[in-house]
Amino acid sequence: MYLIRGGTVVTADDTRRCDVLIDGSRIASVGPDLEVPMGCTVVDADGLMVMPGGIDPHTHMEMPFMGATASDDFETGTRAGLVGGTTTIIDFVIPTAGGSLVEAWRDWRAKAGKATADYSFHVAVTHWDERVHDEMGVLTREHGVNSFKHFMAYKGALMVDDGVLLRSVKRALELGALCNVHAENGDAVAYLQADLLARGITGPEAHPMSRPPEVEGEAAGRAIAIAGLLGAPIYIVHVSTKDATDAIARARSAGQRVYGEVLAQHLVIDDSVYQNPDWLGAAQHVMSPPFRPKSHQTALWAGLASGQLQTTATDHCCFCAPQKEAGRNDFTKIPNGTPGIEDRMSVLWHHGVGKGRLTPQEFVAVTSANTAKIFNIYPRKGSIAPGADADIVLWDPVAERTISAATHHQRVDYNVFEGMRVSGVARSVFSGGRLAVHEGDIRAKRGDGAYVERPCFSDTFDALARRRASSGTTA
Amino acid sequence: MYLIRGGTVVTADDTRRCDVLIDGSRIASVGPDLEVPMGCTVVDADGLMVMPGGIDPHTHMEMPFMGATASDDFETGTRAGLVGGTTTIIDFVIPTAGGSLVEAWRDWRAKAGKATADYSFHVAVTHWDERVHDEMGVLTREHGVNSFKHFMAYKGALMVDDGVLLRSVKRALELGALCNVHAENGDAVAYLQADLLARGITGPEAHPMSRPPEVEGEAAGRAIAIAGLLGAPIYIVHVSTKDATDAIARARSAGQRVYGEVLAQHLVIDDSVYQNPDWLGAAQHVMSPPFRPKSHQTALWAGLASGQLQTTATDHCCFCAPQKEAGRNDFTKIPNGTPGIEDRMSVLWHHGVGKGRLTPQEFVAVTSANTAKIFNIYPRKGSIAPGADADIVLWDPVAERTISAATHHQRVDYNVFEGMRVSGVARSVFSGGRLAVHEGDIRAKRGDGAYVERPCFSDTFDALARRRASSGTTA
Amino acid sequence: MYLIRGGTVVTADDTRRCDVLIDGSRIASVGPDLEVPMGCTVVDADGLMVMPGGIDPHTHMEMPFMGATASDDFETGTRAGLVGGTTTIIDFVIPTAGGSLVEAWRDWRAKAGKATADYSFHVAVTHWDERVHDEMGVLTREHGVNSFKHFMAYKGALMVDDGVLLRSVKRALELGALCNVHAENGDAVAYLQADLLARGITGPEAHPMSRPPEVEGEAAGRAIAIAGLLGAPIYIVHVSTKDATDAIARARSAGQRVYGEVLAQHLVIDDSVYQNPDWLGAAQHVMSPPFRPKSHQTALWAGLASGQLQTTATDHCCFCAPQKEAGRNDFTKIPNGTPGIEDRMSVLWHHGVGKGRLTPQEFVAVTSANTAKIFNIYPRKGSIAPGADADIVLWDPVAERTISAATHHQRVDYNVFEGMRVSGVARSVFSGGRLAVHEGDIRAKRGDGAYVERPCFSDTFDALARRRASSGTTA
Amino acid sequence: MYLIRGGTVVTADDTRRCDVLIDGSRIASVGPDLEVPMGCTVVDADGLMVMPGGIDPHTHMEMPFMGATASDDFETGTRAGLVGGTTTIIDFVIPTAGGSLVEAWRDWRAKAGKATADYSFHVAVTHWDERVHDEMGVLTREHGVNSFKHFMAYKGALMVDDGVLLRSVKRALELGALCNVHAENGDAVAYLQADLLARGITGPEAHPMSRPPEVEGEAAGRAIAIAGLLGAPIYIVHVSTKDATDAIARARSAGQRVYGEVLAQHLVIDDSVYQNPDWLGAAQHVMSPPFRPKSHQTALWAGLASGQLQTTATDHCCFCAPQKEAGRNDFTKIPNGTPGIEDRMSVLWHHGVGKGRLTPQEFVAVTSANTAKIFNIYPRKGSIAPGADADIVLWDPVAERTISAATHHQRVDYNVFEGMRVSGVARSVFSGGRLAVHEGDIRAKRGDGAYVERPCFSDTFDALARRRASSGTTA
Repeated sequence: MYLIRGGTVVTADDTRRCDVLIDGSRIASVGPDLEVPMGCTVVDADGLMVMPGGIDPHTHMEMPFMGATASDDFETGTRAGLVGGTTTIIDFVIPTAGGSLVEAWRDWRAKAGKATADYSFHVAVTHWDERVHDEMGVLTREHGVNSFKHFMAYKGALMVDDGVLLRSVKRALELGALCNVHAENGDAVAYLQADLLARGITGPEAHPMSRPPEVEGEAAGRAIAIAGLLGAPIYIVHVSTKDATDAIARARSAGQRVYGEVLAQHLVIDDSVYQNPDWLGAAQHVMSPPFRPKSHQTALWAGLASGQLQTTATDHCCFCAPQKEAGRNDFTKIPNGTPGIEDRMSVLWHHGVGKGRLTPQEFVAVTSANTAKIFNIYPRKGSIAPGADADIVLWDPVAERTISAATHHQRVDYNVFEGMRVSGVARSVFSGGRLAVHEGDIRAKRGDGAYVERPCFSDTFDALARRRASSGTTA
Repeated sequence: MYLIRGGTVVTADDTRRCDVLIDGSRIASVGPDLEVPMGCTVVDADGLMVMPGGIDPHTHMEMPFMGATASDDFETGTRAGLVGGTTTIIDFVIPTAGGSLVEAWRDWRAKAGKATADYSFHVAVTHWDERVHDEMGVLTREHGVNSFKHFMAYKGALMVDDGVLLRSVKRALELGALCNVHAENGDAVAYLQADLLARGITGPEAHPMSRPPEVEGEAAGRAIAIAGLLGAPIYIVHVSTKDATDAIARARSAGQRVYGEVLAQHLVIDDSVYQNPDWLGAAQHVMSPPFRPKSHQTALWAGLASGQLQTTATDHCCFCAPQKEAGRNDFTKIPNGTPGIEDRMSVLWHHGVGKGRLTPQEFVAVTSANTAKIFNIYPRKGSIAPGADADIVLWDPVAERTISAATHHQRVDYNVFEGMRVSGVARSVFSGGRLAVHEGDIRAKRGDGAYVERPCFSDTFDALARRRASSGTTA
Repeated sequence: MYLIRGGTVVTADDTRRCDVLIDGSRIASVGPDLEVPMGCTVVDADGLMVMPGGIDPHTHMEMPFMGATASDDFETGTRAGLVGGTTTIIDFVIPTAGGSLVEAWRDWRAKAGKATADYSFHVAVTHWDERVHDEMGVLTREHGVNSFKHFMAYKGALMVDDGVLLRSVKRALELGALCNVHAENGDAVAYLQADLLARGITGPEAHPMSRPPEVEGEAAGRAIAIAGLLGAPIYIVHVSTKDATDAIARARSAGQRVYGEVLAQHLVIDDSVYQNPDWLGAAQHVMSPPFRPKSHQTALWAGLASGQLQTTATDHCCFCAPQKEAGRNDFTKIPNGTPGIEDRMSVLWHHGVGKGRLTPQEFVAVTSANTAKIFNIYPRKGSIAPGADADIVLWDPVAERTISAATHHQRVDYNVFEGMRVSGVARSVFSGGRLAVHEGDIRAKRGDGAYVERPCFSDTFDALARRRASSGTTA
Repeated sequence: MYLIRGGTVVTADDTRRCDVLIDGSRIASVGPDLEVPMGCTVVDADGLMVMPGGIDPHTHMEMPFMGATASDDFETGTRAGLVGGTTTIIDFVIPTAGGSLVEAWRDWRAKAGKATADYSFHVAVTHWDERVHDEMGVLTREHGVNSFKHFMAYKGALMVDDGVLLRSVKRALELGALCNVHAENGDAVAYLQADLLARGITGPEAHPMSRPPEVEGEAAGRAIAIAGLLGAPIYIVHVSTKDATDAIARARSAGQRVYGEVLAQHLVIDDSVYQNPDWLGAAQHVMSPPFRPKSHQTALWAGLASGQLQTTATDHCCFCAPQKEAGRNDFTKIPNGTPGIEDRMSVLWHHGVGKGRLTPQEFVAVTSANTAKIFNIYPRKGSIAPGADADIVLWDPVAERTISAATHHQRVDYNVFEGMRVSGVARSVFSGGRLAVHEGDIRAKRGDGAYVERPCFSDTFDALARRRASSGTTA
């Protein structure tokens, strides 16, 4: 039992001074001047903001990818997240080629048992057959999965064509589950990669050339069109361009239910990193979508502030120098991914709230509440209210720190925000009612995290069903 | 003391079965299976939704306008609102030409003392001089006014030019107050009116011809540009066109803080009403902006669902047949205005939620919560939470009723929704902790309403200040 | 030798009274009050407009398609075109699956030998291999082909995926040839067709449901993105939606070279035709893209007037009742296509010029001159100038006629414009210097037409090459 | 009589090798291998392009403005234009406050008598009364004026409000004349200027701060809306922003007839010039609209290439150092204007054609042909055809020169393109049949220029009349 006393509770809706009582894994009460129950530990939050723990809806812990395995595992990755104020992740289950979704989900659950913070799973659909159709049902009905992921890129590996996407989106709609897409045109990427290699351009500077903004904007538009045909909602992961942001905004202005996620990295880092004469320095920034010309950042920030983009994530996927070396002579072999989970909250606070692009309440909305709503675990997650999971961060809005691989807790040998001085620091973090981090002391233990089941059929699905009924559309 | 038992509490964020305890004028607690305190009246809400009372941010009770006085006064108008589930209004103080803002505010407060439900005031700025500048300060500091209204239309009467608008927006920004605009190009309207009259087109069918959509789109764009120059937020009242909706969305996508309000009437009624061969039937629909071709409605609904438009209102302003007759031979003399306060909630529910354009939570957002946030009275209004004003509507989502002037409570002799069958009925309404309406029995009394002070400097103003500081903009 | 005397010569640039002297197949001189050479026939054009003969860049004469063969062959189809004022067509060579482009081109040339008016060929690329790559070179260098066509629809038949499209666009760019695309998402169409059939919706009313506007808008956006990646121009055939028009306009406003073609049919016929209770009546309108809701027509007309869309065509492809019957029980088996070549000019004049959407010069631009420029045969075609081919129509701007299958010259048993009264009639038509049609007397003979070679590397290609060089883009 | 032999004639439509025969002031014939008449001077154009002389539709020769008089007069200014390849200007008649338009036109005609090249006049409408209404008629009927100019900026001086603009646009529409607008919100500029001065920001760096892009975008949108209300065409002068370009493109895509002009200066110079620590260096760039952030240039170039912007000009208005000094302590007193007429063609060629943004034909379109068409003097001007005025430039596409005040012919002591190395040089220039400039030798004499009457009612007006008739709009 903990009583968080004297802080300013900030949620997506509201900001007010009050205390928060934690009993077991849940929040018991929220109000001014709460009494201290017997045996209750008081945590002083004077001068601090008391906010819902961050939710990172896009991570890849210990993922096997491009011949390597991401170096942060569920234990170390979630621990680093906790240090930064993130208390829940939604990771991705990636089935083997042609393989079972349910078996893959079991594998991932087994791997994730060691997580120090709560976790949930999107499950990727990478091909289509009767078993996929059926297992989507099993996952939603029996295993708390309410979202499926689709790669429009990675041709020859994870990529699905439009026919598969249509079938999966339709099936998910029946099940009340939300489809996610990685929106890049995989045919175009493959073509451009081959062309660049053929022309002898093999270094990391070729990476953004092989995936220019149009490649993302096109695929986002296509995914939106496909969802629109079926009257289904759609969620675009890691929107990095004005092109995709505009496509989302246009669709929303036409009445479609489309969501967009932005990575902390894309909000503040631009494509000049690929000009780093140090090969490794550039290679460490190889991720997809790549970093973009600075002008795109304005659109992303405006998208978050206007509500056209709703969530922030990191696509946390760590590869150390020896792993990145696999692509020394061929940029297409550099394992794609960057770390981020530990620093997302600080980066969003400093560059978002600190620079006036977001209010503190909007910060909560885009770091946790909106994500919880979209993935239908609100108000259990993403809120500070009686009955909610006691995932809470005590946030010091003015304390500063310098981000560095030398001090971070991520199991990876670099940090894309290296040297960035940020204000906004997680002083203490509660996870599932436990004081997981307290003034630099990490108390969270392997296995403390729990699997989060997410129910299907959020209200949006009901509204869409009424809309289809009312418009006579029945695709 | 009341205990609302067994209902489903729906707020802008959340939907869950729980009870609500009212103590005095406030909500005391919200939770499942609350105990019944001694002396507490239990109100059964089984099968009902328990939602925040509606806020109508745009009404004109007993307003002197165009030679007439609006027939619904603060007593009758707010009472009709209560019947429909609206528990708070924000009305408009209109100073006399060149007159004192503070004195006008005092007049309006005096008139409003008889209100049966809570009320607040936007104050119109219709000219500029030193006194206006100073009185804006007095109103914000001493009288709980945090919003000022500007008419870009009504040339020769209420209209301000861009110079006045700039000065007022700048002054309001200093004070942490939000500027509202009625966005129609008054020069163009005056020109078109004169042209139509000169051509002998004098009936109500000329009204929409004198104020085509471009007239609104232009002015909205201009107001947004002016606010943008100063780094100030802006709120566009009664957005009725795709043109203005697009202008708002573009500005928001460029990072500007712009808000848009939609009237229930514009969402469902189109401009065919002006073709009514019965003069009075057509004249009763004369309001500004006028009703629009049906295609605009799609944009308005999508704007609400996507969050690019945030609030709904009615511009409730009633004129009876004899008053409308003033314009029998000259459409420009027809007092502008339509009733709406009593039916907004039903119309929004039926056409919004019922047809799948909105979720129930979005319904709450656009009928009360967003309005309370934008005008900085959240969570006192617009929420169901301990400490909030006990303004609560028990909503029957499936009950049906037929809207009619024969049965409505508005003091006006027609209803623009006449004959519309809607599902969604306010069964009981609490206002300030009193059971104001219960199963058709109106218990609210003259003077039950209270004046609602609204503090300045919502979080958005802080963010904008940081943004200006960070960007070096200092206009 | 003919002297056209006393008419008003209208070109895309200019309108002036003057005479036109034809010598052999070419125009010899243009000027006021030309002298009549010996042996020259004088044709009186008093009160008439003297305009370049129409070019229809999109026809399918005697095309084998969906198990049928289009009923108008090169002789009858071009003759009907002449009657309506169209003097040149660009038809499509469709290779057999996996077959040779050059052989297909030879087949089509052989079939077209009987044409009564000039003809040229786009050649379709429907798969990719080394031979296609090489034959594109042969066709451009040796056979006067400067454009290649790609179907993004007709999955399992003509459709190419993005990888093929990229390769073909790149290859065409090297050759200075322009790529065309039929922009509809074939995966989506196939999915929707199967879904509709599975739901027992088998009639022609299902046709537009299987190809809604998004399906076209998406594909247009994708084709544009692909061309943009390579710095290549792209031409979208039969743009029928606001969606695709907007995609084109956006790309052009971003500096890309994108062209759009509109069919006369889509400009004036809407999707209500599919509600015809007479099966055949509805089936006769089955073409792809299908007819659209009326609101799209506004965008198409504005696109032509603003220059965002440049050309008009007909996709002339005739199937008679017995052929359409093939799809009696399955709309997907109805041979796609409608006639149009004979009436395009009249429809464009009446609804375009007559209703003030276009000036007469713009009429010439969109019926011939722009097409000739884009396909690099200007000023040989599309102009009235010394040296140009003597393809001239004497146009009566005020004469009226009623379009009907009973009187038309197309070899097909219906007309989609049946009963339409239009002003604007071709009084006399010169084709290659011959008086092909004169006051209703058709003099053109089988085989009078000639094959039109079109050179590669229009100026646009030079500009694009300089742009790529200057921007350092070298995809 | 001159025969231009062996050049490549480039017009807006066509590029071909042929000779041009000049007889008197007109072009006599154009064709390959023309015979040399007796007494005819042959000018060798081998390796050169033979193009229509440039038309600069926006100059201010010897204009009294802001207490100064522009230093280039009609003689010197037009001579400098000839050197650069510009053979016609359209200058602006600015009546005195409340004064007669016809008298002002007479004054300007008198001043312009000394021009060395052809000239015409837009006449400014700066207030509204019965005399203005009548004199617009006189000017169009008797004096060859077909365009009127309106300043939406310069509050307290030239600025008109929307009421005046509406009346003038309506009157011009009746007369078949085209309205032009300087689109900047004058109220906003005045407000921002006062604010900057009050804050002690008095240098040229304040100039762009007082007229940010929104100020132009807003006014452009407003002018377009006003024209749209009346069904009139509108021409926006000196479009310098993406904002205004987008507004124009949107209107055109909605079917409106809107035209946009771009200055050579805005295409290549950005707002960094105002950071010049040398006061005079910065002050020399003070013009309105000001130079913009570089990103706007992309939109302007794309606008020209896509045809959404049609013309290029210079707003040539010269003030020497002592004149600019008037604003040493107050940037609002710096006479607004920059030179440009001599270098527009080279700048457009080098940065437009040379960098692949424009084809040579598009270069002709945007430097002369489109202007001639819009202002209804085509094909007399802007073409190379028999009967056209012999205004011809022999253009060396590869020759280079360095722009400098040290060598230019403009009567002003600086050049905004100082030091710019450009390819594209006018070798010889014919003006009205005279060889005005030949290989650096300036032969044009004071008074050689002639006044160009421009007839009203271009085809666009006819189309608009039919459109209004057909749509039933009769505003």
